[in-house]
Amino acid sequence: MPAAEAGSLQTDLPKGLQSQELFDVLVEKGDVRVERIVSTGQATPEDDWYDQETDEFVLLVSGAAALEIEGEADERELGPGDWVMLPAHCRHRVAWTQSEPPTVWLAVHF
Amino acid sequence: MPAAEAGSLQTDLPKGLQSQELFDVLVEKGDVRVERIVSTGQATPEDDWYDQETDEFVLLVSGAAALEIEGEADERELGPGDWVMLPAHCRHRVAWTQSEPPTVWLAVHF
Repeated sequence: MPAAEAGSLQTDLPKGLQSQELFDVLVEKGDVRVERIVSTGQATPEDDWYDQETDEFVLLVSGAAALEIEGEADERELGPGDWVMLPAHCRHRVAWTQSEPPTVWLAVHF
Repeated sequence: MPAAEAGSLQTDLPKGLQSQELFDVLVEKGDVRVERIVSTGQATPEDDWYDQETDEFVLLVSGAAALEIEGEADERELGPGDWVMLPAHCRHRVAWTQSEPPTVWLAVHF
C-alpha cells in the first residue's frame, strides 16, 4: 500500500524578517503542486504583478496579509482561514504580509 | 480578467454536534476539487475504510483529529497545521474528531 507522507505547516518557521519568502513544495504530482509559503514582511515590488499560467488556490493559514487584484479598488485583507482562488492570468500582487509571527500560506497550483 | 473568488474556512461553522460531517466544495476544475470539511465528533465506522480512486491532500486547519492508516500500529494525531498526503488506495479511517469547537479540514482531491 502506498505510504502517507505527512508534515506540519508550522515547523521550521524562520525567526524574524528574512530576505525572501520561503517556498516548500509539499506535494508535486502531474499538474498539481501543493506548497507552503512563509512570508516575513515581504511584498511584491510596487507596480509588479504576478501573471500566472496556471490556477492557484491560496489559503492564509496563520498571520495576516493583503492581496491587490488588478482592477479592484481595494486591497483584500486576509486573516487565518481566508482563501482566494486566483485563476490563471488574474493579475495580482501581495500588498503586505505580517512578519512576526510569520505569515504562513498554503498554495495549490493546478 | 477572470474574477477571484474568495471565502473563509471559519464562517458558518455549525454549533455543537451534528449528525454528519459538512462538505463544502470551494473549487472544482478538471480533476481537482478543493473542499472544506467540518467534523463535529464524527469518526469513520469501526472496521470501515476509505479506499479512494484519487489522491487526497488533507490539512487540519483547526480543531483536532486522528487518522488511522491501514497497516500502521498507531493512529496519527493531527493538530492545526498538520497535513497528510493520502495517495489513491491508501486505506484510512478517521479515528476521532474534536466536536467543540468543530474540526475544520481543507482537502484537495486530484
